[in-house]
Amino acid sequence: GPLKEVLFFPSPSACVEHLYAPAGALSCSCPLPHGVDTPFARLLGHLLSAGATLDLCVFSFSNASLSRAVLLLHSRGVAVRVITDREYMTIVGSQIGTLRRAGICVRHELSNAVHMHHKFVLVDGKKLLTGSLNWTVTAVQSNKENVLVTEDPDLVGPYQEEFCRLWEASDPT
Amino acid sequence: GPLKEVLFFPSPSACVEHLYAPAGALSCSCPLPHGVDTPFARLLGHLLSAGATLDLCVFSFSNASLSRAVLLLHSRGVAVRVITDREYMTIVGSQIGTLRRAGICVRHELSNAVHMHHKFVLVDGKKLLTGSLNWTVTAVQSNKENVLVTEDPDLVGPYQEEFCRLWEASDPT
Ligand SMILES: [Zn+2]
Ligand SMILES: [Zn+2]
Repeated sequence: GPLKEVLFFPSPSACVEHLYAPAGALSCSCPLPHGVDTPFARLLGHLLSAGATLDLCVFSFSNASLSRAVLLLHSRGVAVRVITDREYMTIVGSQIGTLRRAGICVRHELSNAVHMHHKFVLVDGKKLLTGSLNWTVTAVQSNKENVLVTEDPDLVGPYQEEFCRLWEASDPT
Repeated sequence: GPLKEVLFFPSPSACVEHLYAPAGALSCSCPLPHGVDTPFARLLGHLLSAGATLDLCVFSFSNASLSRAVLLLHSRGVAVRVITDREYMTIVGSQIGTLRRAGICVRHELSNAVHMHHKFVLVDGKKLLTGSLNWTVTAVQSNKENVLVTEDPDLVGPYQEEFCRLWEASDPT
């Protein structure tokens, strides 16, 4: 059957360098544990599996490791679209400005009376990751959080439609 | 196949009285629209379908309509367990005190350094509702939010295990 997986956080600290640059995996000398399969490593692995598109809809995005993954995908030619919250995109530590400066398309909720509170991502329009996890360091390393991963078209489909609906509704032009 | 459904919020306002008391459905004279199938009505319907157990794990809980549903289930003899966030359980408007005074078992994250940020619920150990939606009025009526509903045992199982793990880990005694 299609992929199904549930990831629970907080995630133990472990090196994820090999996920960004597989060829360098054996040579990393950082002080973190190596060769450990953590929930965060699995989350990163799913994101970095994108070959064509990454549609991200996330309330707050301040995690530099996740930003690095998105920038890497963009540099590989993956079409990245980001929808985020109007208020939280400007807080200290937000990665949204970094993404925009790199040329990634970012839109935000236009009303300042409501929050864009989703935390889901679609990989190549075929894999859905959704749950409670904001893209912050605290969420990954400290909080009790969950991310459900599925390739079930009956679940991926509605989220992809909602992403496209929100993308159009957030068009500032 | 097993039930699969995705609910997106905000939900339009509509009367949900019939869900609490089916016999009175035809007689409601409140000013809200009647007979409208909204995402919130579907969420309530799934919750009120509980016949044996309701395991709720939610960061913030201030929505009185959802509190009423949980109290109704408790009065029907459904075994309700609630895990919530230590900090948010005491904010103004929190329903947690009301649940506790009614005799419902509530536990919270013991550390004050981390947040219990989940928003999922298990109905009779067979149906999972999980997503971005906190149990507040703003989340239901204003925010962009999602709730995924599934009876797939491969997804329900890990969340039920995590609930039981957190329940034990939050035992204050
Ligand atoms: Zn390393
Ligand atoms: Zn009514």
